[in-house]
Amino acid sequence: MSKRVALSVLAGIVLASSAGSAPALAAEPIQPIEPAKIMSPGMVELGKKLFFDPRLSKSGFISCNSCHNLSMGGSDNLKTSIGHNWQQGPINAPTVLNSSLNVAQFWDGRALTLQDQAGGPIANPGEMASTHALAISVLQSIPAYVAEFKAVFGRETVTIAEVTQAIAAFEETLVTPNSRFDKWLKGDKGALTNAELEGYELFKDSGCTACHNGSAAGGNTFQKMGVVEPYQSTSPAEGRVAVTKEEADRFNFKVPTLRNVEMTYPYFHDGEAATLTQAVDTMGRIQLGRKFTEAENAKIVAFLKTLTGDQPDFKLPILPPSTDATPRPRPFD
Amino acid sequence: MSKRVALSVLAGIVLASSAGSAPALAAEPIQPIEPAKIMSPGMVELGKKLFFDPRLSKSGFISCNSCHNLSMGGSDNLKTSIGHNWQQGPINAPTVLNSSLNVAQFWDGRALTLQDQAGGPIANPGEMASTHALAISVLQSIPAYVAEFKAVFGRETVTIAEVTQAIAAFEETLVTPNSRFDKWLKGDKGALTNAELEGYELFKDSGCTACHNGSAAGGNTFQKMGVVEPYQSTSPAEGRVAVTKEEADRFNFKVPTLRNVEMTYPYFHDGEAATLTQAVDTMGRIQLGRKFTEAENAKIVAFLKTLTGDQPDFKLPILPPSTDATPRPRPFD
Repeated sequence: MSKRVALSVLAGIVLASSAGSAPALAAEPIQPIEPAKIMSPGMVELGKKLFFDPRLSKSGFISCNSCHNLSMGGSDNLKTSIGHNWQQGPINAPTVLNSSLNVAQFWDGRALTLQDQAGGPIANPGEMASTHALAISVLQSIPAYVAEFKAVFGRETVTIAEVTQAIAAFEETLVTPNSRFDKWLKGDKGALTNAELEGYELFKDSGCTACHNGSAAGGNTFQKMGVVEPYQSTSPAEGRVAVTKEEADRFNFKVPTLRNVEMTYPYFHDGEAATLTQAVDTMGRIQLGRKFTEAENAKIVAFLKTLTGDQPDFKLPILPPSTDATPRPRPFD
Repeated sequence: MSKRVALSVLAGIVLASSAGSAPALAAEPIQPIEPAKIMSPGMVELGKKLFFDPRLSKSGFISCNSCHNLSMGGSDNLKTSIGHNWQQGPINAPTVLNSSLNVAQFWDGRALTLQDQAGGPIANPGEMASTHALAISVLQSIPAYVAEFKAVFGRETVTIAEVTQAIAAFEETLVTPNSRFDKWLKGDKGALTNAELEGYELFKDSGCTACHNGSAAGGNTFQKMGVVEPYQSTSPAEGRVAVTKEEADRFNFKVPTLRNVEMTYPYFHDGEAATLTQAVDTMGRIQLGRKFTEAENAKIVAFLKTLTGDQPDFKLPILPPSTDATPRPRPFD
């Protein structure tokens, strides 16, 4: 028996075994979130500091956590975000929670990986408004950071690739297992109320799971916003066409995850739906051609609120202070 | 023997006993920071959430922690702060760390207590730009907050007095014991290097401790900025005269604490001193009429860096989500 065959058999055994302990799992379109496996704790700790460090912005005021606030579902709970000099962003900040499960990053999927994504806002003039070179100068001037980068990456010289790799490593830990819905999926039949369960059945029967499926209940495909009737928006966002240049991709957006959706309001790429009730109503109409009754809507919303999992659970990071050599923030020029 | 006399005798015994275990303590102008005694943990936890909650601002973007960032020495490390709509603040944000040891709050001491202070920025149009009424509407619309206020204060109705009391209770926990200097004060003679100790001796001999004394090494008096020669500043801040209306108090500012001063750059009420070296040089010249040599300055700076104590040590708070009834943030109007 070759090694490959042996491994396949072993995999088969493992699968059979987990199917045996929770037979419902395979049949449901939404799968449980699994806890993060942390391969490099030092890199994660470094990435956490960087995620919270506003010195990656020109102003010294905006960090990754400003718009992906881990106290608030990994989002800023604003329609569109606030950038350098209070610029109004063009799009709703997607949650960073469970973002490692996304097929790609940003609403239009223009970054394939979390690492690719992390470099974007730092150098975006409308967001953190720094440059990669300036961000590196700041970090390189702080001995405690240099030592930490060296411990993790083995080199004295900090690079933007290391910065974004560390941030991505931290972000990969931001999964949210143990929601009530996942407990139900794993066999705890008392984890959901009848209304929540009815909401889930309606969610499936209405076709919501055509897009909102997988462990993130979304995040794994691009879909047109406005299938049955056009979506009216003043947002300039064009969707995936901006990446592919294919006209067929106009208004195609990455399907957002519904994990922790109670915390990630407002909804849609333009943030125009302030509440889950509005979001469910709009989705029903424009994506499925279905007008949910008030009672149906309430049941689906009740189900959606069972998708809130374990929130980030770590100590507030303490950042190493700047030194005399550190380039100073320039918030007002 | 009356009860009062008996207590005095007892107090005498306690004092004698602590003097016996660390004889140097009484003789030094700077005293150790003692750990916080938490009397009401529920109130502290509630105050921590409020401190991190940007929904206390009109924009939904600025929290207490934005300008008193507990990852960065309880300050924003900016010359002057950024307020609503990116307004440039008139003054350097003082650290919230050890602020419970201050004689009063704000640079001009216009708030006598932490509770009085906490209400100011929420309603200041140049800072968080909300109103107390709006902040209360937000909190009152969030059942998890209402339940927490009820558990702490015993009432269904949230008031601004409770909000500020809870924030103050949290801030009172933000003391920073166990600095290397405090270890030295308490008898660990190896806690400081010779250069640091020489810096401390020079700090005392030069007269710095005339103002920077007590457990916070400052914070306990108002003093004129520019005793020996006038301090040149473009800052509009007038100092304590704004509160007392006494011309003698012009340019009198609260002496800032030197605790964690390595982390609370830039320095002075106008943030004009970017580094400790600059701050020590300016203070020597304008307050003491003394030009420190480069070597002297370096020793004092070395001493100052021993004042960094235990930084805030708690989990990032998770905020309860808004509900359909919660007034929405208005960042752009």
